[in-house]
Parts: sequence; C-alpha cells; structure tokens
Amino acid sequence: MNKFSLAVHGGAGTILKSAMTPAKEKLYRQALADALAAGYRVLAGNGSSVDAVVAAVLILENNSLFNAGKGSVFTNEGTHEMDAAVMCGKTLKAGAVANVTRVKNPILLAESVMNKTQHVFLAGKGAELLAEEFNLEMEKPDYFFDTLRHQQWLAAREAQTVSLDHKDIVTEKKFGTVGAVAMDSSGNLAAATSTGGMTNKRYNRIGDTPVIGSGTYANNNTCAVSCTGHGEYFLRAVAAYDISCLMEYKNLSLQDSCRIVVNEKLVKLGGEGGVIAVDGRGNIELVFNSDGMYRGWIRQNEEQNIAIYK
Amino acid sequence: MNKFSLAVHGGAGTILKSAMTPAKEKLYRQALADALAAGYRVLAGNGSSVDAVVAAVLILENNSLFNAGKGSVFTNEGTHEMDAAVMCGKTLKAGAVANVTRVKNPILLAESVMNKTQHVFLAGKGAELLAEEFNLEMEKPDYFFDTLRHQQWLAAREAQTVSLDHKDIVTEKKFGTVGAVAMDSSGNLAAATSTGGMTNKRYNRIGDTPVIGSGTYANNNTCAVSCTGHGEYFLRAVAAYDISCLMEYKNLSLQDSCRIVVNEKLVKLGGEGGVIAVDGRGNIELVFNSDGMYRGWIRQNEEQNIAIYK
Repeated sequence: MNKFSLAVHGGAGTILKSAMTPAKEKLYRQALADALAAGYRVLAGNGSSVDAVVAAVLILENNSLFNAGKGSVFTNEGTHEMDAAVMCGKTLKAGAVANVTRVKNPILLAESVMNKTQHVFLAGKGAELLAEEFNLEMEKPDYFFDTLRHQQWLAAREAQTVSLDHKDIVTEKKFGTVGAVAMDSSGNLAAATSTGGMTNKRYNRIGDTPVIGSGTYANNNTCAVSCTGHGEYFLRAVAAYDISCLMEYKNLSLQDSCRIVVNEKLVKLGGEGGVIAVDGRGNIELVFNSDGMYRGWIRQNEEQNIAIYK
Repeated sequence: MNKFSLAVHGGAGTILKSAMTPAKEKLYRQALADALAAGYRVLAGNGSSVDAVVAAVLILENNSLFNAGKGSVFTNEGTHEMDAAVMCGKTLKAGAVANVTRVKNPILLAESVMNKTQHVFLAGKGAELLAEEFNLEMEKPDYFFDTLRHQQWLAAREAQTVSLDHKDIVTEKKFGTVGAVAMDSSGNLAAATSTGGMTNKRYNRIGDTPVIGSGTYANNNTCAVSCTGHGEYFLRAVAAYDISCLMEYKNLSLQDSCRIVVNEKLVKLGGEGGVIAVDGRGNIELVFNSDGMYRGWIRQNEEQNIAIYK
C-alpha cells in the first residue's frame, strides 16, 4: 500500500494580498479545504485516484468563487462555455469536453466520455446531447448567473478586452481554472481540470484545460498534472506532457520538471500560470510563475495545507 | 541556405493493393504529386515552411479523394464536420479549428487563427464566424456532397458503426486525414493537418488532428510532425509531441523517434495509423503501422517520391 496524496488548485494569476479581504480569503481557503476533504475521503476509502480528482473538482465546480461550473465567466455573447478533462494514469484513458453550456458539472461529463465511450474529446451540442443520454444534471443559464461575474463581463465588454480571469479588476490577470491531481493507495495517478474559460471570450475559443497533454495529463510511469494559466501558451508548450517527458526521458525529478516547464519554458514563451502535479512516489509539486495560485495539498495521515500567495 | 524538404500524406489504414484499381491508384498518385508540387513551388521561391505546408494541404482538401475539405465524410446527422491545425516551428505559434461545417478550406482558417488572433484553438460556430470575418470562402453542404461518401455513410449508419475512414468497404479501416510537413531554405519547420473525421461520427467528436502536440506539432529544435490514424489513441499518446521529446530529451534521431512512437508505443496502446515528419537537417520520415499510407516526399532538386503500400 502506498501513502496516497492529493493536490488541488483554483486558478493562478495576479492574486495580491493587498486586494484580498480576510473574509474573502477565508471563503477561498474553506473551498479549497472542502475540495481536499472530498478527494481525501475517496482515497482514504481505498477509492481510485480518478474518483478522488473528480470528487475534488466537483466541489470547486459547484462553488461560485471559481471560474468553472457554477462560477463560470461570461462569454462575449453573455453565455457560459465550459471545458473539462480527466485522465487515468494507469490506463492512459482520457475524457474531455469543450464548449458545453448547460452541463452542471463538466468534469462528470468528461469522466463519462472516458469511461463510457470510445472517444476522448467531444464538444458543444454533441457533448451536451451525450450528457443528456447519460442523465447528467443539466442547468438553465440562470444557474450560472453571478452578479460579480456579470459586472466583470460588462466591464470587459466595455473595455473590449478578453479577460482570462475572474478578478474584480479586469486589468489584473487571473486564470480561472480548477483542477486536482492524486496518487491513490494502489499507486495509480490521475488528473482532472475544469474551467469556464476567458471572460468575454469569443469564437468558441478552447484553451488548454480540455486538451490532453497541455492542460491535463496523467501517466503512472511519470506524473499527473493539472495546469492553470494563459491557455494559449500552455497549448503551444504542450505543458503537461512536457513535464511527463522530462521525467521519463531525462530522468528528472517531478520538482525539476515542473520548474523547467513553468519557470523557464513558459516564461520564455510569455505564458503566465502554474501547475499542480504528483508523481508515482506521492511527491507533490505546486509551481507557478504568477503572483499567486489558489492551492491545497495533503498526504495520507498528514495535515492539510492551503496557500494562495507566493 | 538549407536544402529544403517536404512530405505529404493522405491518410493511413487498410489500403490493400488487391482492392485498388490501376485507374484509382493513378488518381491518388496524381493528387499526392499535385500537393507536393504546390508545396515545392513555395519552397523553391524561398517561401516559408508554413506557406508550403498550407499550400500542400490546400490541394488535398480540394480533392474529393481524401477525407478533408471537399472530400469530408458524413457525420451521423448527415452533415460534415472538419478539423485542421497548423504550427510554425520557428515561433511555436499554432492555429487550430474543430467542428467547422461550412469553411471550404479549414487549413486556411487554422492559419488565420495562428497569424491574426491571440488564440490557438477555436471551434464550431465561433470558428465559422471568424472565417466569415476573415472573408474566407464558405460553402453550402452540397459542395461537400459526394456519392461514394454518402453510400459509405448510409452503410455505416445501417451497420451502426462509426467508421474512421473513407473506404469502400466499411469494415476495413482507413484513417482519412491529410497533412504536410516541411523544412524551408531558412531551416524553419512547419506542420499542417486537416480532416473530415470519422464516417457516421456523433457528439461533435474531435480527434487528434486539431490538437497541438497530438496530431500536429512543429519545433525548429526538433521536428515537424503530422499524424493520421485512429485519433483517440494519438490523443492519449500525445503522439506528435512525443516524437519531438524523444529527439530533444533523449537525443534520438528522427527515424528512431518516429519508430518508437508509431511502431512501439501506439501499437501497445492499440492505435493504428502513421506519421510524416521532417527534422532540422531536412531528414524525412514516413512511418506507419497500418497496411498502407498515402504519402509523398521530395527534397530540393531531387525526384518526387510517391507511395501507398508498405
């Protein structure tokens, strides 16, 4: 039996202590703790890492603080478009969805794509049709409505900007994504990521979140990775799989691999954000090149850790 | 000045000489020769590798023999959904589109996404809206109608199968994708891929073609790769970037890297298909684990090569 481990994130970016109130910070910390607790329960019951990361992401999708699920930002058309992915490191099976608008929990749809179909990646109306066939919970637009998000969108639309974040001040950068990585007691790895994308986004833009290898990747031989950041750069860098390859082909540690990708390669490209990752020994890394990243991590029978700033 | 090189493919799969007529084979060979000629003209005029691979793919998209552009297969709903991607190895910039239904040349839209937007990956109606804004040629469904494809679809629908190919006999497997890779006289690499997806596909399924790192990847430090095959396996394998990583991190040759991914890793996963690739020295590889792959390649001032079978 291995000593299981779990990490979660709620997005990275310009998260400044000066702009945070104690009350708000408490809410964020509680949400991350809740997500860790949900994943921990699964792992402590000898559940799989896939079930654990899905359980953790589900909690974050249902919390309007984060740009995923319920808290998803508004598109240019005033709608919500969500992406999600999950990957199992044991089987290398994966499921991903993009541009779904009515699915309450996109991560559950991604999991169904992985477990119940011959496909990996589905999008838009087709993905939603499948969600209905699988009897997943669907929501009307008002479920995703949030006053703060709506104000952000109106401000972004007025400024004609595309905001990647769910920040009060649109000029600041924060990359709203949630994710989880885990190693279970059998030593199996998994990763899951979910997002509402960019505020005011157009053209059915897809970021790195649902792209296997870029925003989400898991492989028992190396690591499980969930990314958050300016998606276009993570796509061009194939960021998650790059971390895996540095471990597999250069025999680097999880720590060195994460740092090379996040602090060197992504910085060189101009890509802001971060990753959470776990390897086959249960080592956990939480690396970001932005001011902060909402994050939490825990190992079996150890204390929970929650952090926001550098 | 480097000696430029170029390769193209028109899909891989169960392509048996016994099922081919001399007249049909001639048409395929001519189409591949035309695509090579179009790319060669660009490279011979000191054009960029990006322009060359787009020019080559354009020819294949406009030929109804191949499952891309005009020759795209039918979805379950009797429509056409196309995916395409292009990547520049010098800048690591990339553009990709998925699930477009009316764009005459999806590869041109992918190129516009790369060159004229801040995004990498757009889908569906949003991507088509952008195509209209860029004044790209749009077509009505009848442009994509083809009697053979329609018969294949009716047969597939009757058999309730999802066919990945554009083969006369639905039980045979052929992976309809077109692609090109090139190194130009400045030593810059590029890759482009385009597809109509799987016959009778549902749920807005996306394969590896438009996924940077899986179906398409280019990096001047290593190689440019365009894949064709059972997309789900290429997605799970992050196949194109894996070839690049084997070169970059293990110092393997292009040949060894392609063979490990196509003949070992993909075979182990169960993924049928192939890749074309070129490295920074102008070496060309065309590797497949299926019975055949429509392919052609040429180096500056050398003879054109066209092949179909093993």
